Amino acid sequence: MTVITLLTDYGSASPYPAELKAVLAARCRALIIDITHDVPPHDIGAGAHVLAAVAPMYPVGAVHLAVVDPGVGTARRPLVVAAGGHCLVGPDNGLLMVAARVLGRPRAYAIDVGRVALRPLSETFHGRDLFAPAAAAIAMGLPPDRIGPEADAPLELFGPPATRSAGVIRGRVLYCDTFGNVITNIPGPWLEMVGVDALIEHRSGSIAARRVRTYAEGHRGESLVLVGSTGTVEVAINGARAADALGLTAGDEILLARRS
Amino acid sequence: MTVITLLTDYGSASPYPAELKAVLAARCRALIIDITHDVPPHDIGAGAHVLAAVAPMYPVGAVHLAVVDPGVGTARRPLVVAAGGHCLVGPDNGLLMVAARVLGRPRAYAIDVGRVALRPLSETFHGRDLFAPAAAAIAMGLPPDRIGPEADAPLELFGPPATRSAGVIRGRVLYCDTFGNVITNIPGPWLEMVGVDALIEHRSGSIAARRVRTYAEGHRGESLVLVGSTGTVEVAINGARAADALGLTAGDEILLARRS
Amino acid sequence: MTVITLLTDYGSASPYPAELKAVLAARCRALIIDITHDVPPHDIGAGAHVLAAVAPMYPVGAVHLAVVDPGVGTARRPLVVAAGGHCLVGPDNGLLMVAARVLGRPRAYAIDVGRVALRPLSETFHGRDLFAPAAAAIAMGLPPDRIGPEADAPLELFGPPATRSAGVIRGRVLYCDTFGNVITNIPGPWLEMVGVDALIEHRSGSIAARRVRTYAEGHRGESLVLVGSTGTVEVAINGARAADALGLTAGDEILLARRS
Repeated sequence: MTVITLLTDYGSASPYPAELKAVLAARCRALIIDITHDVPPHDIGAGAHVLAAVAPMYPVGAVHLAVVDPGVGTARRPLVVAAGGHCLVGPDNGLLMVAARVLGRPRAYAIDVGRVALRPLSETFHGRDLFAPAAAAIAMGLPPDRIGPEADAPLELFGPPATRSAGVIRGRVLYCDTFGNVITNIPGPWLEMVGVDALIEHRSGSIAARRVRTYAEGHRGESLVLVGSTGTVEVAINGARAADALGLTAGDEILLARRS
Repeated sequence: MTVITLLTDYGSASPYPAELKAVLAARCRALIIDITHDVPPHDIGAGAHVLAAVAPMYPVGAVHLAVVDPGVGTARRPLVVAAGGHCLVGPDNGLLMVAARVLGRPRAYAIDVGRVALRPLSETFHGRDLFAPAAAAIAMGLPPDRIGPEADAPLELFGPPATRSAGVIRGRVLYCDTFGNVITNIPGPWLEMVGVDALIEHRSGSIAARRVRTYAEGHRGESLVLVGSTGTVEVAINGARAADALGLTAGDEILLARRS
Repeated sequence: MTVITLLTDYGSASPYPAELKAVLAARCRALIIDITHDVPPHDIGAGAHVLAAVAPMYPVGAVHLAVVDPGVGTARRPLVVAAGGHCLVGPDNGLLMVAARVLGRPRAYAIDVGRVALRPLSETFHGRDLFAPAAAAIAMGLPPDRIGPEADAPLELFGPPATRSAGVIRGRVLYCDTFGNVITNIPGPWLEMVGVDALIEHRSGSIAARRVRTYAEGHRGESLVLVGSTGTVEVAINGARAADALGLTAGDEILLARRS
């Protein structure tokens, strides 16, 4: 059975996700799985990174319906992006393309609104009235290149990537999780550069941190750096919430160096 | 496959929804979809409005299990309401009937407790022990008129509907969503009355607002009125949370007029 | 179709539950049901009690994937516990065994990591890389005794059970729910001991409470004791949140006696 994943900023307490699911349930038979409905409202970058971390874990053939869409009802194009055997469905605002690049060889198509949308098409809820019917059509076997014409140059988000020079790694915080762990965009293998005793500079100071394999190493309260489950560097504190202790949030810059 | 939707005030962090699903999984094969478990605790009116907005989007044959039930264990009747080809299952306290009126031609039946309920029947969790088994029986094909005798005059909630006279529309706030948009009970077409520049009076003052089609119109910080995705009037602010800025919450009165 | 339930402390706003579901969707066909992802972070005891309350309601054959795992990546064993026709999958830290004792006749097996885990196996996310593949294998029919060697003496949590002597019942708070009801570990039948007018002593004082059957009895604001839906004693207040009013949280001691 085809998997359709959902990622939105609607809020899991809101009824909007259930409106998407009503459209999907009426139009296709698929296994519907929520990635999250709690992307920070209108935060396209956060949504794009979560989608890129999770979507590629699904089997080939999965359809990912992703809606973080502050421009709903304006001229931004509605897209289906085929990539690596998956399909991503959502607005042309950068949300889809980070995941599409990870999945590989993206090709974008502009959804033919007249052919796919519910009638009447609301001006404020294209998730329900346009993207969900498009996702259902793809899940039912419509080839992505039949959903509409190929779309040139879909919008891409280019955050500054992590860099390293003169023994200093410069990256930024992608996400702080439920446990207060700080997930960065620094590639895991770069951690070799800083040895076992690392120095972390952040917005309000600097700390020494030990390189470990997992969260429960070190003594209680010790600051740790490690390679997390998505392959990038994380900062944690044994038994405490690193994000709170260091005052770090998504988007903050962070520097790593070997402790001298 | 039959769809069973769930709407409760149990809290999505609580294990109670999973207890409903355990009963359903043991007794029927259906596609179970959460509408929400975060109706404000004991707020029958809020639950009734969310149910009425979402349930009719599901295909004919859907079963809607809805439990906001401050009177659990008292004499209030347990109901199945057949309406418009759907079935609504829950307590006779007004929760079901707003949706039933939207679905059309409601007929209510009092659930025969001795025939349907789990044994022992708890006094405090009829969602699990009575309503879920009833929903499962309906999903498995039991006609609603076999669940128990027809129930006269199920309780209905009559909030004052929106009114209009002498150029003034008087309505109230049904819901404020994740983005701070204020959803009212004022029918969308009435917005014609107030022209392009509207005046909104609310509990703590009045503002001018421009009539637009969607949230991203106008300049940043501009107040907007528009017809939302459920067909009623909404108040929004471009790039900000209208509910917070205007101090509005569910139940508040709101007035709209043409700006002179 | 086999049911797989999920219970974690990942947070329902996080993408981690969707990573578990990606692994399950790729490896088995099952009905996946969330018990909760909002166990307080690292609170093994709270997770164990919720699992023990909910898991036994599922039909025989259910697989329960439960991960509250502060020791991920350390030497703690990964387990499958067969009990009462169900299988529990998770870390050997006490999380599984309360439910296993309720289900009956537990037998524990240490998961053969080399045979089951995803490659590469992360050090920080065994829920996704080890426990989810094990749960999928069991759901696809692998007998639990084939997942690895029998595991001696899995860790068990022994909170002090409720006691009664000299007319006083001594128990503790397991959980406070969405409505502010206080769920204790005191067996329901013991409530007979305290008659209709009970005295409750708690951390910040004592109150008189009336023994009733359900939450809506008594007058508004009246304190109540009753037998809740899992068979243990609960403290509630008609129309108010008992947990807030009495300042009670999970783990607090509570005393009940007949009011003299």
